[in-house]
Amino acid sequence: MAGLAGEHGTPLYVYDGELIRERCKAFKGAFSGLPAQIRCLYAIKANTNLAILRIIRDEGFGADIVSSGELDAAISAGFDPDMMMYTSNSKSLADMEAAIEAGVHMTVGNMTELEYFKKAGGERIAFRVNPDVDAKTHPKISTSLAGSKFGLHFSEGIAFEAARDAVQMGLKVAGIHCHIGSNVKDMSGFLQAAEKMVLFAEKLKEELDIMLDFIDLGGGLGVPHEGEKVVPVEEFGAAYGPVIEDAVARLGYEPQFWFEPGRYLVAEAGVLLAKVNSVKKTPTKSFVNADAGFNDLIRPAMYDAYHHIRVLGKSGEDAVYDIAGNLCESGDILGKGRMLPKVSAGDIIAVENAGAYGFSMASNYNSMPFPAEVLVRGERADVIRDRQSIQELYLRQRMPDDL
Amino acid sequence: MAGLAGEHGTPLYVYDGELIRERCKAFKGAFSGLPAQIRCLYAIKANTNLAILRIIRDEGFGADIVSSGELDAAISAGFDPDMMMYTSNSKSLADMEAAIEAGVHMTVGNMTELEYFKKAGGERIAFRVNPDVDAKTHPKISTSLAGSKFGLHFSEGIAFEAARDAVQMGLKVAGIHCHIGSNVKDMSGFLQAAEKMVLFAEKLKEELDIMLDFIDLGGGLGVPHEGEKVVPVEEFGAAYGPVIEDAVARLGYEPQFWFEPGRYLVAEAGVLLAKVNSVKKTPTKSFVNADAGFNDLIRPAMYDAYHHIRVLGKSGEDAVYDIAGNLCESGDILGKGRMLPKVSAGDIIAVENAGAYGFSMASNYNSMPFPAEVLVRGERADVIRDRQSIQELYLRQRMPDDL
Repeated sequence: MAGLAGEHGTPLYVYDGELIRERCKAFKGAFSGLPAQIRCLYAIKANTNLAILRIIRDEGFGADIVSSGELDAAISAGFDPDMMMYTSNSKSLADMEAAIEAGVHMTVGNMTELEYFKKAGGERIAFRVNPDVDAKTHPKISTSLAGSKFGLHFSEGIAFEAARDAVQMGLKVAGIHCHIGSNVKDMSGFLQAAEKMVLFAEKLKEELDIMLDFIDLGGGLGVPHEGEKVVPVEEFGAAYGPVIEDAVARLGYEPQFWFEPGRYLVAEAGVLLAKVNSVKKTPTKSFVNADAGFNDLIRPAMYDAYHHIRVLGKSGEDAVYDIAGNLCESGDILGKGRMLPKVSAGDIIAVENAGAYGFSMASNYNSMPFPAEVLVRGERADVIRDRQSIQELYLRQRMPDDL
Repeated sequence: MAGLAGEHGTPLYVYDGELIRERCKAFKGAFSGLPAQIRCLYAIKANTNLAILRIIRDEGFGADIVSSGELDAAISAGFDPDMMMYTSNSKSLADMEAAIEAGVHMTVGNMTELEYFKKAGGERIAFRVNPDVDAKTHPKISTSLAGSKFGLHFSEGIAFEAARDAVQMGLKVAGIHCHIGSNVKDMSGFLQAAEKMVLFAEKLKEELDIMLDFIDLGGGLGVPHEGEKVVPVEEFGAAYGPVIEDAVARLGYEPQFWFEPGRYLVAEAGVLLAKVNSVKKTPTKSFVNADAGFNDLIRPAMYDAYHHIRVLGKSGEDAVYDIAGNLCESGDILGKGRMLPKVSAGDIIAVENAGAYGFSMASNYNSMPFPAEVLVRGERADVIRDRQSIQELYLRQRMPDDL
């Protein structure tokens, strides 16, 4: 790992392609034997590098996409449009036209989008609904509380009315979709949401004679930090067994069940490597000054996310450090109060669990170029994104002739 | 303004070049008549577009820079290296070599950087110090509390020891620098910091016979939101009069005083224009779904920052809306509970005070291309950055041949 930092420089994202495949197999495996057809779609916003997409597609996953940019990325990576689901709270008519033209599945989440869908020539519609379930995760990534911007509410019959309107407009209601949040560590929210979805499917059948092709239960399975308890993927899959069995019995037909993991597939496979520029002792604490910052990995600064940090090639617990990023902002701290071996300038640190929502949220803040990305598979290491140069920051800039 | 959105598309940053010039003149004007030489350096991280830099340079400002990327940008925009100050908590030896080679001023903030400075052939050093002052701003942008990663502390003689070491290493101690935080709305922190800086300068003279070329008091002057009270720039400048007069008397020599405004010069001159994709009524509230999100402007999501939002070409106060961004994240809300005229799909909204820490913090999250930027001067409107294409998101990606 230190060799990669030496060869390719820092900051550097390194992904373990074999671990991604392992997680893909584990996720799919957790649903084997369930009494319905299951479809797994990777939420590509977690990590959109085309090489990563290609691996996950090879493992038989589809793609959960949220924008015209992601539509293009998923197509470029070779995903089958029938295995792609476009969900977002705010789509333009042009976004929807492009997606319908490409032949992907799509949810609408409000009445304007229903009109756009019809206008764009869509035929088989799905609805994003808001089941009003508390995912017990960080508020910024908890997507199904009553006050969330996502989906049509069950309450006041809003989602049902939308489905009735769709039928009256001559559209086929093909699916319903919910997503309760991201990095969820507790099964109860998932199961509550599933129960509400099945109830809604029953109502659609009874009152509108709708037989759904699929019920998309979204993603959100969390990954563990240091000693934290999460739902093991086998339990996650197995827990849906009785739900699906019951659903099929109550509905009298067999919709597919779709799932949209993101973080689970890629988070643990990625590390952000950074070099230590300097170490500083202050009256209250010691700082490790890294050459990466929240331009590279924003989760600690934005969500107070914990990422385990280790020093390559060193062990022991010699001192407590705050690991500071190199941006000019006090909030740019990658880790607080970490017990580490004695750190020196030149050391390489690894910020773990950085494969999801790492590079995909990176910015050029403080005029920092984007880092490079390397994919490791066994002994093989391939650069899958070159480091951005400073010159590229000017690529699209234009100077008025009188300035 | 709506015309610009129509012509150049949305999301779109629009800057008023004349207002930037006005703010530059007001800032410099606020210091006229002070009993010392004043130098004003623009903190370019607030908005690093080269055209904006050119305007501010034309107004006689220098540049406060924080990275090798910003060094390059400031040089590209034509700033005089002698008018540039490089400050950051975490610089590599290579960063420092490049800056010293370019001939800019530089602070060091820890003992490793002091060694790097000497090694890189630096001669005239400045120290970033931590005066332990509460700026009373958002914790993430409050940079001078005792626990901050920035600067050498006065306490325990840390900053003083560093200066003594520098002298012993044959370096000329040219300046001292502090910065208490960003978007500060209260004068007391600024003045406390200035007093502590002068005390330190006295100690340096008395004990080490150091006569400083400059005392850099940093930036941080806030801009007002809706009806909020801030320090008017005239008062800000005038408040330093007695401080500087006293300092010169106590020191027995005349250092320059440097200031580093960022937000003040550019925030109010910028708006982010976004198009309304859809409007949605839910049981608890109504949402305006915009075609911009925290990929374009992260301040509301990251700092809970308030940005005034208006609907172009409409007036009145008809309903309360949350203005939702188009990212797949619940925290992507540009404004909460805003009383607006009745909003319809197709309307253009303007998110105000977006000229600082807007584009400069933008990301490609959710595979959203970077927005375009337009500079308006009177009747003239120039595109100063073209909208990024989706294809550009793949520019540096490489696919391993076996994938």
